[in-house]
Amino acid sequence: MIPDVSTGIGFDAHRFADSGERRPLWLACLQWDDGTPGIAGDSDGDVAVHALIDAMLSASHLGDIGSHFGQGPQSKGAGMHGAEMLRWTADFLREHGWSLINASVVVVARAPRLSARRDQAQEAMSRALGAPVSLTATTTDGLGFTGSGEGVAAMATALVRRREAV
Amino acid sequence: MIPDVSTGIGFDAHRFADSGERRPLWLACLQWDDGTPGIAGDSDGDVAVHALIDAMLSASHLGDIGSHFGQGPQSKGAGMHGAEMLRWTADFLREHGWSLINASVVVVARAPRLSARRDQAQEAMSRALGAPVSLTATTTDGLGFTGSGEGVAAMATALVRRREAV
Amino acid sequence: MIPDVSTGIGFDAHRFADSGERRPLWLACLQWDDGTPGIAGDSDGDVAVHALIDAMLSASHLGDIGSHFGQGPQSKGAGMHGAEMLRWTADFLREHGWSLINASVVVVARAPRLSARRDQAQEAMSRALGAPVSLTATTTDGLGFTGSGEGVAAMATALVRRREAV
Repeated sequence: MIPDVSTGIGFDAHRFADSGERRPLWLACLQWDDGTPGIAGDSDGDVAVHALIDAMLSASHLGDIGSHFGQGPQSKGAGMHGAEMLRWTADFLREHGWSLINASVVVVARAPRLSARRDQAQEAMSRALGAPVSLTATTTDGLGFTGSGEGVAAMATALVRRREAV
Repeated sequence: MIPDVSTGIGFDAHRFADSGERRPLWLACLQWDDGTPGIAGDSDGDVAVHALIDAMLSASHLGDIGSHFGQGPQSKGAGMHGAEMLRWTADFLREHGWSLINASVVVVARAPRLSARRDQAQEAMSRALGAPVSLTATTTDGLGFTGSGEGVAAMATALVRRREAV
Repeated sequence: MIPDVSTGIGFDAHRFADSGERRPLWLACLQWDDGTPGIAGDSDGDVAVHALIDAMLSASHLGDIGSHFGQGPQSKGAGMHGAEMLRWTADFLREHGWSLINASVVVVARAPRLSARRDQAQEAMSRALGAPVSLTATTTDGLGFTGSGEGVAAMATALVRRREAV
């Protein structure tokens, strides 16, 4: 009962680090130097990438990000940036007979202003995955934890196909 | 690397306007006169429409709602209702070689009671887009900013195909 | 204008019951005995199942969970567990000419630790639906109502095809 085409959804949210930590902000495979604090979390905290990876793994019925990259400072993901994690995931899908058709991710955050560098972010994510990735961004009008600026959330969807079926 | 079929996700959230503003409520292409306040925001604040537009643009790799309709009282979207924005988006996709297969949107809100007019809302959105749009509605059991009645959120997914591939 | 393949999205959120209620926790078609309180709500409160059902019904343009299972203690859904609700939904789709290609659901919760029993949950949901269902799980880093442990949320996507088109 393995389908030729399959869909997946992913979600992630993280807290911004205390500004005293001077942690760099990585989001959508780019580093942001606009004064927005970095994101707490394993690896570089890139919620857009984490949501994309879960969408891809879920579409391919291959677990989730925690089962492959682990958690905590000793985990595989701890030292990795988003682009590297995306490349690993695309390879992993291919080894298991899947290939990504496309993916789409929306980042919900008060800052940074993603639209200013959308093309660059899309290109970085698409290059890492070898398939088109679209990025949109929105706010919650000051509501909830993304509106207060405490954190950032991302949700993604991915469409994959069986490579044998191509 | 442009696929024949492509998926996209969209999200939007807005604050309800102060009831003193007497702003009419537009949601899912319908006006609601049940006493629920209107939604703050550019255009008519229709979050269901905005999430749908982002899902369609993201699936087609054509930017997001902000890049086409702008923000603020002088923007293109400022005077537009949801149905008009949907028609523009469907036309824009077609001009760029895409057509919408279908779209699905879920509205998360304490009020209004969308299920009472679901058929009418679905028909209005489907007519504007020239493809089937489904609407579901849910609450968050009193939790978060949609539960408190401060705001309303919507998330959507869209499936598009290359017109050349039809 | 009925497409051969169609996508849908679903969302649900519920409050955890007071621990004094000793309500059992059902989530992703499994019962959890790890001390996490049960979920308030009609039926067994299984938000993963509810999000999946809305995604499937929305993809098939067949209403939403409320229109078929109702609300309140006298409703059809009141005495039902998740697996039974999923079976009903898969049958209902088939009767209306649709079949599920696959579905994907992400649960956002501080507890229980879903990854520990992901395979078992996926198997239970896939068996009930007769098609592959993937489950991922994440937290919100202590933010919002899922972070505080007040409630649990789930979002899902489904891909369906017209049976005549197979």
